[in-house]
Amino acid sequence: MTSNTPVSFEVLTEGADHARVGVLKTQHGVIPTPAFMPVGTQGTVKGLTPEQLRNTGSAICLGNTYHLYLRPGTDIIDQHGGLHSFMGWPGPILTDSGGFQVFSLSNLRKVDDDGVDFRSHIDGSLHRLTPELSIAIQQSLGSDIAMCFDECPPADASQSDVQKSMKRTTAWADRCIQAHNAKGQALFGIIQGGLFEDLRIQHAKELIEMDFPGYAIGGLSVGESQSDRVRILDVLSDKLPFEKPRYLMGVGRPIDIIEAVERGVDMMDCVLPTRNARMSTAYTGEGRLNIRNSQFRSDLQPLDKNCDGFCCQHFSRAYIAHLIRAKELLAHTILTFHNLRHFQRLMSEIRTAIRDGNLAQLRIREEKLQNKE
Amino acid sequence: MTSNTPVSFEVLTEGADHARVGVLKTQHGVIPTPAFMPVGTQGTVKGLTPEQLRNTGSAICLGNTYHLYLRPGTDIIDQHGGLHSFMGWPGPILTDSGGFQVFSLSNLRKVDDDGVDFRSHIDGSLHRLTPELSIAIQQSLGSDIAMCFDECPPADASQSDVQKSMKRTTAWADRCIQAHNAKGQALFGIIQGGLFEDLRIQHAKELIEMDFPGYAIGGLSVGESQSDRVRILDVLSDKLPFEKPRYLMGVGRPIDIIEAVERGVDMMDCVLPTRNARMSTAYTGEGRLNIRNSQFRSDLQPLDKNCDGFCCQHFSRAYIAHLIRAKELLAHTILTFHNLRHFQRLMSEIRTAIRDGNLAQLRIREEKLQNKE
Repeated sequence: MTSNTPVSFEVLTEGADHARVGVLKTQHGVIPTPAFMPVGTQGTVKGLTPEQLRNTGSAICLGNTYHLYLRPGTDIIDQHGGLHSFMGWPGPILTDSGGFQVFSLSNLRKVDDDGVDFRSHIDGSLHRLTPELSIAIQQSLGSDIAMCFDECPPADASQSDVQKSMKRTTAWADRCIQAHNAKGQALFGIIQGGLFEDLRIQHAKELIEMDFPGYAIGGLSVGESQSDRVRILDVLSDKLPFEKPRYLMGVGRPIDIIEAVERGVDMMDCVLPTRNARMSTAYTGEGRLNIRNSQFRSDLQPLDKNCDGFCCQHFSRAYIAHLIRAKELLAHTILTFHNLRHFQRLMSEIRTAIRDGNLAQLRIREEKLQNKE
Repeated sequence: MTSNTPVSFEVLTEGADHARVGVLKTQHGVIPTPAFMPVGTQGTVKGLTPEQLRNTGSAICLGNTYHLYLRPGTDIIDQHGGLHSFMGWPGPILTDSGGFQVFSLSNLRKVDDDGVDFRSHIDGSLHRLTPELSIAIQQSLGSDIAMCFDECPPADASQSDVQKSMKRTTAWADRCIQAHNAKGQALFGIIQGGLFEDLRIQHAKELIEMDFPGYAIGGLSVGESQSDRVRILDVLSDKLPFEKPRYLMGVGRPIDIIEAVERGVDMMDCVLPTRNARMSTAYTGEGRLNIRNSQFRSDLQPLDKNCDGFCCQHFSRAYIAHLIRAKELLAHTILTFHNLRHFQRLMSEIRTAIRDGNLAQLRIREEKLQNKE
């Protein structure tokens, strides 16, 4: 990493298949990879203080450009000197481009080659997002890693629609590069191409020619089957530059994470651990448990007897079941902390397993847990 | 404190009027007095982990017998070895007797000399609370300080009604003493007598003869005027044994706390700081601020520039205003922490002011803030 490079990445260990252990360095800290990135949509990982987030073992968190642009607005975050200071999180931050949210959350969107018109899901107000505006917002947020503004077609889009949207995404990526000039921030490209192997290969090639410091795989985790996702990851696993970090967007369940890592993915994000927490579901070594179920009302065990998090050191399932019934906020905090700690313990196990050459065993364990559901 | 005494109390400094700095020692820790005790109604101070509660500077917290008896029930807490273990709070706990809640929260209550029939506010189920059951529950909860089961008449009760209820409270206090045998737990008496000075004096005398290790002043903070409350505290200030701790139940605002301390009160509890937090109100050196107000949306200042709490070190009013609008749980956690830290900083200032002989100045400051509202 030269002093002009906002992020640097190094593969430390190559494991079986394409799995690798690495380290991603940013100006706000170092991220061991493969890394799971909790989602802090509105400038907070729901229910946790920054210190608690750090204590889950999370090295980096996400911020959502779409949400923060609409509320509180870029001006206010800018006045704080950026998102790190606004939310009191001193570690690395990755911001998405707003593209995915515009296509999934907003109303009345109208896409043309220049950008997207949409209505806010909060108050119905009319907005227009372009590659240039997305980059301007992300530069104002001051994230360590910004993402190119892309068009994300639905999982069932036709080949010609995907091709059209891919072409637009390439043109937008070029405009993002032109618009981007924040020194401390890296800009990652996003590879689209849907479930079409030849399109994925073609789009990867187009973006690799643009020489981004990192590549995201977009357009997956949008409703496709597990086998389709794995098929696309297989195709990309030896097409992406070895020396650059690879980020699979929106994935996923523990088994999905391992399958992605086996195909060379270094970074992932997903709302599953935090969203499940708010629905009273805990990830454990026995699989997912819904603590609202009556059997847990008198269960004196911790959520997971092998978990080192403060929740499992101090609280029983019965206590958490009580908090849920009593509608106490602390239930959300405890379960969110626990689930993120569970995911970060899994990532740590994954990194060790790659080094020790037994990632397959970890996959088999998680497959069994998944098949129980 | 002999090894058989569950709590000991020592007055370290006598200040102006009846104010005193002391120390209350329990088997779970030491409490500097005058002390403010946050309310953990359902086995949690709403929105805070035990560690965060500790970091507010709180040395002791309250648990509510009525709520915990109804949900999750004594059996479950018993199986955890008591409330400390159930809620993961290693510090001292005081439990109320359930009396006040039965009279204020439940439906269809019917009082006789033996006890109270009432319906649960949760599910309408029928229950009967007696002095013996209240003590049994509190012993099962394993609090450091238990309270006698008392009858709490409304603020506008007639002298004869108050007298009748006082007589019953004395009889119940006697039954509580008979029923109480937990070695690690102190049982405090509760002085009733409404707003009638002669009744207060008479009831104090009756309870002092029973030789409790501490005395609570009940039946205040139930809607009476500030001057009525001060009048009763004035009457009691030289009637209660100097060497025993005095606990004013349910008080209060910062100004009320100081006025009580000036009349010899050592301990207080109140839901104001935590309840106000959930209504977006922050206590500050400028008075109470409702952070929902639009002026705070772009206010880069901390809640209180003189506060040493982690919230004021890391978060701006604008960030908290954003969290409130975005309906993020963290808003409650931050404001609850902050308000409790504010109250504990006030208690620390009070203890210092008593030692330095300038408590009156502190009172004048808080009177001015109160009069701004």
